Amino acid sequence: MPVQPTREDKFSFGLWTVGWQARDPFGDATRAPLDPIEAVHKLSEIGAYGITFHDDDLVPFGADAHTRDGVIANFKKALDETGMIVPMVTTNLFTHPVFKDGGFTSNDRSVRRYALRKVMRQMDLGAELGAKTLVLWGGREGAEYDVAKDIRAALDRYAEGLNLIAQYSEDRGYGLRFAIEPKPNEPRGDILLPTAGHAIAFVNDLERPELFGINPEVGHEQMSNLNFAQGIAQALWHKKLFHIDLNGQHGPKFDQDLVFGHGDLLNAFALVDLLEFGGPQGAPAYDGPRHFDYKPSRTEDYEGVWESARANIRMYLLLKERAAAFRADPAVQEALAASGVAELNTPTLNAGETYQDLLNDRSAFEDFDPDAAGERGYGFVKLHQLAIDHVLKAD
Amino acid sequence: MPVQPTREDKFSFGLWTVGWQARDPFGDATRAPLDPIEAVHKLSEIGAYGITFHDDDLVPFGADAHTRDGVIANFKKALDETGMIVPMVTTNLFTHPVFKDGGFTSNDRSVRRYALRKVMRQMDLGAELGAKTLVLWGGREGAEYDVAKDIRAALDRYAEGLNLIAQYSEDRGYGLRFAIEPKPNEPRGDILLPTAGHAIAFVNDLERPELFGINPEVGHEQMSNLNFAQGIAQALWHKKLFHIDLNGQHGPKFDQDLVFGHGDLLNAFALVDLLEFGGPQGAPAYDGPRHFDYKPSRTEDYEGVWESARANIRMYLLLKERAAAFRADPAVQEALAASGVAELNTPTLNAGETYQDLLNDRSAFEDFDPDAAGERGYGFVKLHQLAIDHVLKAD
Amino acid sequence: MPVQPTREDKFSFGLWTVGWQARDPFGDATRAPLDPIEAVHKLSEIGAYGITFHDDDLVPFGADAHTRDGVIANFKKALDETGMIVPMVTTNLFTHPVFKDGGFTSNDRSVRRYALRKVMRQMDLGAELGAKTLVLWGGREGAEYDVAKDIRAALDRYAEGLNLIAQYSEDRGYGLRFAIEPKPNEPRGDILLPTAGHAIAFVNDLERPELFGINPEVGHEQMSNLNFAQGIAQALWHKKLFHIDLNGQHGPKFDQDLVFGHGDLLNAFALVDLLEFGGPQGAPAYDGPRHFDYKPSRTEDYEGVWESARANIRMYLLLKERAAAFRADPAVQEALAASGVAELNTPTLNAGETYQDLLNDRSAFEDFDPDAAGERGYGFVKLHQLAIDHVLKAD
Amino acid sequence: MPVQPTREDKFSFGLWTVGWQARDPFGDATRAPLDPIEAVHKLSEIGAYGITFHDDDLVPFGADAHTRDGVIANFKKALDETGMIVPMVTTNLFTHPVFKDGGFTSNDRSVRRYALRKVMRQMDLGAELGAKTLVLWGGREGAEYDVAKDIRAALDRYAEGLNLIAQYSEDRGYGLRFAIEPKPNEPRGDILLPTAGHAIAFVNDLERPELFGINPEVGHEQMSNLNFAQGIAQALWHKKLFHIDLNGQHGPKFDQDLVFGHGDLLNAFALVDLLEFGGPQGAPAYDGPRHFDYKPSRTEDYEGVWESARANIRMYLLLKERAAAFRADPAVQEALAASGVAELNTPTLNAGETYQDLLNDRSAFEDFDPDAAGERGYGFVKLHQLAIDHVLKAD
Repeated sequence: MPVQPTREDKFSFGLWTVGWQARDPFGDATRAPLDPIEAVHKLSEIGAYGITFHDDDLVPFGADAHTRDGVIANFKKALDETGMIVPMVTTNLFTHPVFKDGGFTSNDRSVRRYALRKVMRQMDLGAELGAKTLVLWGGREGAEYDVAKDIRAALDRYAEGLNLIAQYSEDRGYGLRFAIEPKPNEPRGDILLPTAGHAIAFVNDLERPELFGINPEVGHEQMSNLNFAQGIAQALWHKKLFHIDLNGQHGPKFDQDLVFGHGDLLNAFALVDLLEFGGPQGAPAYDGPRHFDYKPSRTEDYEGVWESARANIRMYLLLKERAAAFRADPAVQEALAASGVAELNTPTLNAGETYQDLLNDRSAFEDFDPDAAGERGYGFVKLHQLAIDHVLKAD
Repeated sequence: MPVQPTREDKFSFGLWTVGWQARDPFGDATRAPLDPIEAVHKLSEIGAYGITFHDDDLVPFGADAHTRDGVIANFKKALDETGMIVPMVTTNLFTHPVFKDGGFTSNDRSVRRYALRKVMRQMDLGAELGAKTLVLWGGREGAEYDVAKDIRAALDRYAEGLNLIAQYSEDRGYGLRFAIEPKPNEPRGDILLPTAGHAIAFVNDLERPELFGINPEVGHEQMSNLNFAQGIAQALWHKKLFHIDLNGQHGPKFDQDLVFGHGDLLNAFALVDLLEFGGPQGAPAYDGPRHFDYKPSRTEDYEGVWESARANIRMYLLLKERAAAFRADPAVQEALAASGVAELNTPTLNAGETYQDLLNDRSAFEDFDPDAAGERGYGFVKLHQLAIDHVLKAD
Repeated sequence: MPVQPTREDKFSFGLWTVGWQARDPFGDATRAPLDPIEAVHKLSEIGAYGITFHDDDLVPFGADAHTRDGVIANFKKALDETGMIVPMVTTNLFTHPVFKDGGFTSNDRSVRRYALRKVMRQMDLGAELGAKTLVLWGGREGAEYDVAKDIRAALDRYAEGLNLIAQYSEDRGYGLRFAIEPKPNEPRGDILLPTAGHAIAFVNDLERPELFGINPEVGHEQMSNLNFAQGIAQALWHKKLFHIDLNGQHGPKFDQDLVFGHGDLLNAFALVDLLEFGGPQGAPAYDGPRHFDYKPSRTEDYEGVWESARANIRMYLLLKERAAAFRADPAVQEALAASGVAELNTPTLNAGETYQDLLNDRSAFEDFDPDAAGERGYGFVKLHQLAIDHVLKAD
Repeated sequence: MPVQPTREDKFSFGLWTVGWQARDPFGDATRAPLDPIEAVHKLSEIGAYGITFHDDDLVPFGADAHTRDGVIANFKKALDETGMIVPMVTTNLFTHPVFKDGGFTSNDRSVRRYALRKVMRQMDLGAELGAKTLVLWGGREGAEYDVAKDIRAALDRYAEGLNLIAQYSEDRGYGLRFAIEPKPNEPRGDILLPTAGHAIAFVNDLERPELFGINPEVGHEQMSNLNFAQGIAQALWHKKLFHIDLNGQHGPKFDQDLVFGHGDLLNAFALVDLLEFGGPQGAPAYDGPRHFDYKPSRTEDYEGVWESARANIRMYLLLKERAAAFRADPAVQEALAASGVAELNTPTLNAGETYQDLLNDRSAFEDFDPDAAGERGYGFVKLHQLAIDHVLKAD
């Protein structure tokens, strides 16, 4: 494999990804449980720099304190041995029946209180392990029936809970940043904050919006047939891309969690191009973890788990290589210019121009010839073909 | 028809709706042009209180000043004669070829300047006619090819343009509110600000966010298979529901613009219930125009145009009647209580409770029995069936 | 409840529906197992006439012969006590890991042989219990990766297996009819025979096509955003509607298995209207079981299971009542005539007319005025509104 | 461009593709009409071997006989000069208002008669020009409202019409094959025969099924989020792939008609691999025209039209090159074997084995260990990654 990952690539995996036993709505597990210690070592070997986990991924739900302490100690030891870090942690508020109507927004208040405590406990552990980000995927925060959930009350409770844990993090000096992970549906019929846009809108109305951003996932946005790369660009524009979940999906259907790049390849290219070369002067536009939140297909055995884990990394690095070549190609730069892509960075008004100046500018309207201007060919297809040529490494 | 509209119902229609000549991507017009004057009179007759329009709907694109003045004078006369108002206006930045790559965000700067002028001109007219809201549907603001549009630059230009027109409105004393109308795609492959969520997120980062909200459309959100009533509830939570476009759609496909309620009937019920009885003590949660943005099907003739226009009103009023009965039914109130729907309005923390208090409350976590709590049946299906029973007026 | 089911309504339920323990891809079971004997009695009480099951629903996978015999004997006793019948049985070729790449079409030949045996064993039991139909849902027959499955070879194997079991049924005198249940995806990325159309096409190329039809499910077709009522009409046209699965779904997303009518209500109305009054002179167009293949939501407890089961029946009967009124309404008949709905039953050619006669008929082309004919208004919106008025029982 | 088309590649284009003036539902034309003569010459230059057309693409609707004759004569001359052929023709039954409720299945009988005549006239011309295939895209054959169209009557009329024109073709010695082009919706809310499967099912019940097949289009199947390559494989299995429309689409939304390969690139690869190397011993599985039915984006000018036309050809040839390398790679062959892909070609029964033999084979069931067999890892992810490596030409 000519494309080799390094720690600087910041590849991370969820413990629940390689550890998924492949139980699905219609089938039993096809793989044995994976020891978290082994996961740390194997992920380190294949080039990851970090591992992430839900509380219950590491310590079984309901384990006693002694068991818990032992598990955590062993896990830390594995981190030490490998140099792996824990950039992010998250809380499972969806598996146990108690969360069947949600955690932060369950109609049952006692469940909401319990959920908050569960999150705080995981924040304690995350902080202890050096995590910088708490991801919040509210998979059960939603409804199947419109009359059964007062959405505005639910958003009130969601905000109440988030404000509380933010204060907790700040007071304790955890310094966590919080990243909401949007998803439109599954397991609930409709989930609150269904898209990246809804989540960004929401965090703006929290008490400390600066601590909150989003953790968008490729497949989750594509389940609504939205353009993921475009959504990420908007998130970056808002400075709200706090974390990212990379995987693959084939449009509006169940959550597939394929390997990154194994779904919509061209949009994956656009995404890597944006993340790696979208900043000024081609600098990375995002410097956080490249987190793979995928599932090894149920047909795969233990070896296949690691094949698929490596495939994520390979896809990312291959697309990064192609994006670099695309950006460096003089023919591409010429085509970009012909298409006016960079022209869009020029403000529409001149420096210091007011609307009154614009009103006075007859060339802008009275003397403007829309028919003539409408004849411009933008050359977008040519540009897109050039991009594909680079993706394909075509002569 | 037992359900009769009044002016207080605030029903409005776009001039382009009843005036649609039924030209579609595969077919020529099947209906003659509709005189705007006639539209005003007919809409008034069927119970509307308002009419809205794009600049080019009323005054043909490129008309000279004399023609324009004459058209406007006649239109005002019709308004006077009928008492109809113009609650909203909007600008056509999508029909003419000059806008093929967008208006506010075209890669071509001269187009952007022209677009701003065209919008300002329509604001002048809107203000003159007493419009309170300017809707901005950026149907051409988008792309088919990821590398052909710098999304962040596009959002910069979008914001630049919106900030400019807001200042213009304020300085001129127009007092307009601006409502962005999201749409995921069509006519562009992907449109900027594809959902209600993305649009709310965006307006929060404008210079005068208080002047900006959204104008969500039933079909546009449903084209992404999102739950419209849920999205509206979030918009209301943000106080960003400035205007609303009512119509019907059958999920992710081309923009159908069916009559309101002729698509997903149960979600339309939930929407009317929310708008009319979702405020405190069952007051309306929204007091703006109920604006129908639909298209009479291409199979319909002149008479069918008005049948379909009336059907929008009828559907709204029927669903309002059913929602009123639903809210008043003691059996429903009992079922709502059993489902804990109102319980969600109770804050998760007690008055004055801090996170430290919560940590000290052993009943919240250490002594909480999740297995027992997980056994609660929420009774959501029963509640939903009661709602449908009221929709169907079933005994 | 004014709408009361009778045995003549032929309502049936899968044992796996009311028995679903509510384990989903992100959550553990929320309900205890349901004893099949209890299921028989309860379903009988609520008005069902039949119960259906997968082999492993009744007899746990891998149970020994003694256990199996005991379970079956008890089940028969319950059937006798209640008068319930077993109109259909089906085989589970999807839960056990051995089927992870399919049953009839697994790349592993030994799995295919095992699958055939498992089906034949269930056919024996089905025949013993008087079942008339074997449903085949090939949920694992598919792929996630295009290069990993030779689709034409898979269809060869599928046909081979189906031909074999048909011969077995005929030779043994079981007299079963076979109904393929299409589904586009989930649990596989893409499932073979993804729609009703694909399945009908397929069975036409089997050795005994007359024994094979389909068992379409509301939600499965709607997962592809197809019009279910239209698809059923085509299946009836082909005489291939051998069985039907009724439930609810909200468009392209995971398989929701909601209560019938709790998804797209208007299409559910059209479906019931078609099944009950779509035959000549308003006779039922389908006389088989009305089989509910739904899942009680995960939020519901034991009582909620039966609430939801009853809701299916209630929805069907309510819609049947409304369809009857719709068909009987003179205003509807007038509108149908105006829309030319029945005119479509008149052959396009006159009796005995040849294409040469048609070529000679100048009124058909040379003297036909398409512009004039194009002005006809079809009145479809009015007709649709009348249908909704009847659904809503609106005055 | 290293990949050069030849006539043997059988690339063809519709006259309406490069000739599309870019009028869409929200915008006016952005390009001037294209002279059909010029289209023939330009398409020949870029490497096409054939051109196809609707009657009204070539001869304007309603043109008199003299005009018509002149246009046709000039067109033939261009064909002669270039050596271009007309492999397929089709009839426009959708643009004129007269077809607003369909052609073959309009509720108005006079329209149906007119439609048949229009098709027969185009068959005459097609036969004269040597066309082998008549494509039938019934874009207006459908409905928006379930009660407004008797689907079974519509299928009766559809069949009546198709039977008539087939007899006409046979009697006149035209020898045409008929290819139905499925589409789920747009411009109608739901179109009859919405998928490849529905169309194949339908043609099996015509009088001369052997004359009828399908003309599936990439984007049309993907509008239902179906796997196009899988659908084509089924069509080939039925021997019903009579013609194919190549283009690009981004899932369930309006019909985009992008350049082939510019949508779902990996599925396009699987398709080309199937068409070119899917037959026995790697022979082409399909030998008809590779027909591009795309639209040059509305942003493009005259030059962009031809850029995009060339891009279709380039994409196809690049993917063919990659598929050839994929098939030739020993590592791929090893992975295919490990995954059991070819094993699926082995019948499930031994030669001469009966079901009784299978029942007697204890190794198939009684002694079969499903748990052990369930542990097999299929290695599908590895195989898929190898395919992508070849698509990307990755080392």
